[in-house]
Amino acid sequence: MNFRSDNEAPVHPKIMSALMEANVGSASAYGADPWSLQLNDHFSQIFDTEVVVYPMVSGTAANALCMAQLSPSYGAIFCHQDAHLNVDECGAAEFYSHGAKMMTVEGTAGRMDVSALSRTLSLLGFKGDHDPLPAVLSLTQATEWGTVYSLEQIRALTAVARNHDMLTHMDGARFANALVSIGCTPAEMTHHAGIDVLSFGLTKNGAMAAEAVMFFNPKLADQFGRLRMKGGHLLSKMRYVSAQLLAATEEELWLTLASQTNTAARRLGESLSRLGDHCRLAAPIQANELFAHLSEELNQHLVAAGCQYHRWPGTEDLYRWVVSWDVSENSLLRVEQACRDFIDQ
Amino acid sequence: MNFRSDNEAPVHPKIMSALMEANVGSASAYGADPWSLQLNDHFSQIFDTEVVVYPMVSGTAANALCMAQLSPSYGAIFCHQDAHLNVDECGAAEFYSHGAKMMTVEGTAGRMDVSALSRTLSLLGFKGDHDPLPAVLSLTQATEWGTVYSLEQIRALTAVARNHDMLTHMDGARFANALVSIGCTPAEMTHHAGIDVLSFGLTKNGAMAAEAVMFFNPKLADQFGRLRMKGGHLLSKMRYVSAQLLAATEEELWLTLASQTNTAARRLGESLSRLGDHCRLAAPIQANELFAHLSEELNQHLVAAGCQYHRWPGTEDLYRWVVSWDVSENSLLRVEQACRDFIDQ
Amino acid sequence: MNFRSDNEAPVHPKIMSALMEANVGSASAYGADPWSLQLNDHFSQIFDTEVVVYPMVSGTAANALCMAQLSPSYGAIFCHQDAHLNVDECGAAEFYSHGAKMMTVEGTAGRMDVSALSRTLSLLGFKGDHDPLPAVLSLTQATEWGTVYSLEQIRALTAVARNHDMLTHMDGARFANALVSIGCTPAEMTHHAGIDVLSFGLTKNGAMAAEAVMFFNPKLADQFGRLRMKGGHLLSKMRYVSAQLLAATEEELWLTLASQTNTAARRLGESLSRLGDHCRLAAPIQANELFAHLSEELNQHLVAAGCQYHRWPGTEDLYRWVVSWDVSENSLLRVEQACRDFIDQ
Amino acid sequence: MNFRSDNEAPVHPKIMSALMEANVGSASAYGADPWSLQLNDHFSQIFDTEVVVYPMVSGTAANALCMAQLSPSYGAIFCHQDAHLNVDECGAAEFYSHGAKMMTVEGTAGRMDVSALSRTLSLLGFKGDHDPLPAVLSLTQATEWGTVYSLEQIRALTAVARNHDMLTHMDGARFANALVSIGCTPAEMTHHAGIDVLSFGLTKNGAMAAEAVMFFNPKLADQFGRLRMKGGHLLSKMRYVSAQLLAATEEELWLTLASQTNTAARRLGESLSRLGDHCRLAAPIQANELFAHLSEELNQHLVAAGCQYHRWPGTEDLYRWVVSWDVSENSLLRVEQACRDFIDQ
Repeated sequence: MNFRSDNEAPVHPKIMSALMEANVGSASAYGADPWSLQLNDHFSQIFDTEVVVYPMVSGTAANALCMAQLSPSYGAIFCHQDAHLNVDECGAAEFYSHGAKMMTVEGTAGRMDVSALSRTLSLLGFKGDHDPLPAVLSLTQATEWGTVYSLEQIRALTAVARNHDMLTHMDGARFANALVSIGCTPAEMTHHAGIDVLSFGLTKNGAMAAEAVMFFNPKLADQFGRLRMKGGHLLSKMRYVSAQLLAATEEELWLTLASQTNTAARRLGESLSRLGDHCRLAAPIQANELFAHLSEELNQHLVAAGCQYHRWPGTEDLYRWVVSWDVSENSLLRVEQACRDFIDQ
Repeated sequence: MNFRSDNEAPVHPKIMSALMEANVGSASAYGADPWSLQLNDHFSQIFDTEVVVYPMVSGTAANALCMAQLSPSYGAIFCHQDAHLNVDECGAAEFYSHGAKMMTVEGTAGRMDVSALSRTLSLLGFKGDHDPLPAVLSLTQATEWGTVYSLEQIRALTAVARNHDMLTHMDGARFANALVSIGCTPAEMTHHAGIDVLSFGLTKNGAMAAEAVMFFNPKLADQFGRLRMKGGHLLSKMRYVSAQLLAATEEELWLTLASQTNTAARRLGESLSRLGDHCRLAAPIQANELFAHLSEELNQHLVAAGCQYHRWPGTEDLYRWVVSWDVSENSLLRVEQACRDFIDQ
Repeated sequence: MNFRSDNEAPVHPKIMSALMEANVGSASAYGADPWSLQLNDHFSQIFDTEVVVYPMVSGTAANALCMAQLSPSYGAIFCHQDAHLNVDECGAAEFYSHGAKMMTVEGTAGRMDVSALSRTLSLLGFKGDHDPLPAVLSLTQATEWGTVYSLEQIRALTAVARNHDMLTHMDGARFANALVSIGCTPAEMTHHAGIDVLSFGLTKNGAMAAEAVMFFNPKLADQFGRLRMKGGHLLSKMRYVSAQLLAATEEELWLTLASQTNTAARRLGESLSRLGDHCRLAAPIQANELFAHLSEELNQHLVAAGCQYHRWPGTEDLYRWVVSWDVSENSLLRVEQACRDFIDQ
Repeated sequence: MNFRSDNEAPVHPKIMSALMEANVGSASAYGADPWSLQLNDHFSQIFDTEVVVYPMVSGTAANALCMAQLSPSYGAIFCHQDAHLNVDECGAAEFYSHGAKMMTVEGTAGRMDVSALSRTLSLLGFKGDHDPLPAVLSLTQATEWGTVYSLEQIRALTAVARNHDMLTHMDGARFANALVSIGCTPAEMTHHAGIDVLSFGLTKNGAMAAEAVMFFNPKLADQFGRLRMKGGHLLSKMRYVSAQLLAATEEELWLTLASQTNTAARRLGESLSRLGDHCRLAAPIQANELFAHLSEELNQHLVAAGCQYHRWPGTEDLYRWVVSWDVSENSLLRVEQACRDFIDQ
């Protein structure tokens, strides 16, 4: 019962099959292969607009390259204080952007408040060249706390950004989980809601290493290829990345997997919520993650029952559970049983 | 009655005279002139240890180059949330360090709390390579709020840094003001208190453009000259910077000027403090700056009386007064009179 | 008959099988999986010393991260003027090193001359801080011209570097081809010959995306993991990279494949060399590449016969042929036949 | 008789007087002072077009900031192989531009050949994102060899740049010397000849530390102020830099001084040229510098006679003489006498 991370899961068989199928004969290198050449059309259909797609193998790299593309070195990047971009990437955004200023925004459960964004923005603009230039708003969907911005919330945030001439980025490491959680289209959650650029992630959703940067405004993609190359992120045998991107988004595999993990996370939440004071959810469960304060007694019981999950860094009793695509019905039943046992004991 | 900034003052006549005296005949360029060659010995005497001195003309550059020297790109820099380094330099520290992570520390009146430093440090270390490496502690003395760390406070902060294998930096843009405020020696306020590197500022204290980076551990200075050159901060006619550094610190001119401005700031504070609810000091006056909440009525009265000072960015009623070395007795008397007039009216 | 690039070949079946085998159950992320944890021991045996191994998926990234690790921003990097590092990576080395200076060295057939290295080095050192600090020597083995440095040549170059307190790097994108060409051990071609750090490449030799940075002096590896993370090059599902590295180097698969491609390149060279003035080899064939000046008549004949290869950028009649691991006996026979046909016509 | 460098000269009395005159009362900081506010108009008149002027104190910083403003990180910068930008600034251009690629261009006596520029440009464009993007052409006027591009030569070079969508920069560390050498207007030598941005230098021409970046196309200056700030090059007491810029260019002081030093350099050249095989000029004398191969016998004679000048780094018998604005008639007469003595002995 491994609920430590969706990065620990294996590759989905259909994606593995796609890699096998792509492994026939020679193919042009550096993205000139037949798989890569399909990407723009493929994702333009999915996102219902003309998108420019750059395959990547790392979500951190996708995010950081986006920041370098959208922000000058003297720019300011606004994101939630707990954003992966801010606290989990060893300063990759600052590195790639040549020192852009991170401006963190508060908000409960991983979601920036519109008013907090305005408040953070109001700190700039008084000191002329001493202040960085507001450049990028980056929001994570689903968030680092397993919650999801509503379409209204995204639109409200991007409207503030637009009013300050900023560009907007969505970190979609768990994009599909948010999508099925809301029940909207990819277009509605991105460019319809004011998003300019997306870090689209599939690695956590069954792929081996498959991410993509997607530009909804092709002009913003200008020379992004050279930036990717300069960062060492252009792979020679690109067909194997592109084949994953295609396989995972064909026949709605990505949505099916995300739906399953979301549902499983909710089931876990329901079981744990029945344990009274021993479990207090720290955030609503809207994707494939669950954050809960557990009593030490409950924690020990669950660990003894074989549950694997992480205590959140810097906390005493906050734990994160993540459901991977390969979660089994059996493991869910065992957690549910463990919860019942805890009540009964 | 200009209390807007100590950057608006002219150059002190003795420093101007030193520039005239240095302006005779040719002198080797790039720091090989007789003035520059005296600096190490001169400041080693003042700081009572072997210091390695690099003249600079910009405090921002001094700070940012120090960060690049002391922190790797994957390092974390800890400073007060209001530190000049963090909020007034357009991200120069991130730029020079190639993207080091700024970690801000809370504390009242511009001074980091030791407990807050420990708390911020405790955020790192859980995520392996995803976390930046604690690298530098930078504190400002006197602070951005016109307060001064006691020697005990400095030692407590640097002890925490040392325990985490971090190096320590002091932003001494108003170093002399802090020194005379405490009444200690330069050695006591720096290397005796655990400081490794100092940005030493004289520009705000009567110079034209004269700062210096001082290393109390010569090994830390290795190749700093190349870093300074790479940043474009090695001036060709260096004698004119070094002559300022020497003139300002001969015969205690720097201390005399700092003492005068500190005293004047306290006098302003005393006058304003008598105005009851109309004036509330926002921080103790320990250097040449005064931060106060003023009623709109009082503010208008003082402005009408000819007082010039700045409203603090992002606030409604908080004002900063800075006393420059060229403050006149007459202007102080006029402020005092204006305060009495306000009471009488 | 595709001789365009060894990046166009598919993945070798044994490596593909290893990926399938690794695709079972969950495994710790970010390199804490069982495959990755074997790498240090595995390659320490192969290289007959304690090596510290960092798996990568891009050779450009491996090279650029090595430069950032070995050179300060004010450092100078010495490499052949035609080095991949210098002309094929869009300035990644300058980007990662924060602006280190590339100093190119001349030499025929892609190999730096020792005397040319000394000559380039002699340009520095006169101008104090205006000059960059000699920091890294990087040589490519096999070279960009399909030639191979002898062990004596490597030792002579690294000795010069050592005399100037420089560190040494080998770009081993085609390491195995050089190894079997010389017939020496991995240790002899690297740390025995004075190499500190190796970019070890398998992607061109049958892998999907598998490179590694190897440090022969563990001290030089300090914090390299954070640098890799900061560049976005730490993959979450690292097991799939490490499994490739292991599979390709087990049972000498890498050496077998390299030997086959080297042999095939020599066969191509022999056939072409018989065509008199119509073909003039531009460099000796010592690995899996062939550079030749072809008459336009011969070029058209070969293209018509189905041969695919590239004209070298910026030249009129210079062509590069690269043999991939999946070259077939049949395709070699067809080229040989085409050459005979050309003579007969 | 100091002919070592024009950086060793003192400040011209008129410029020193201007500093004294500016040293009255308080003035707004960071370039909002009355002197700085005049600069745009003042230089717009001199250059006969609307220019946007940023005062600086370092020519290296001016050059490097221009490169960062004009080139993306993935850009290529074309300059003469001996350009100050390339060999005397410790890689500042690479640092500020975040790793742009320096592409050196050949040409005799410090002047790029148009054909060599085209040849260097032809190296790029074949490899897609692997190649940097041609971004900036930078030429030095007067050159590092004391020669001067004719207006035709500048126009020919900038035309090539324009055809490749590149922007153009002039390093004018000795701008005035070139101007009086040609006898044209500032407009003719810059924007009329296709130059977009100028590093304008006065430090070598009698100032203390006064340079400026001038944009002939105001759109190109967008946010340059923030870049300057981020590099730590915005001085607080800017009036003292601007006062120098104004004083040096009023009443043609800059042109008078440049004319005197050019004339003196020619006189030196004439005297030395009479010494037959003992002196061979390495470049025509078109500004205030002289490069000559001297016999060891002559060199020793001149040194014994009190002449101070530098041997050129990396050469056996090539020497550089530079005439500063404070050269005296007496010192010229003494050199002339020394030359006559050498003949007579």
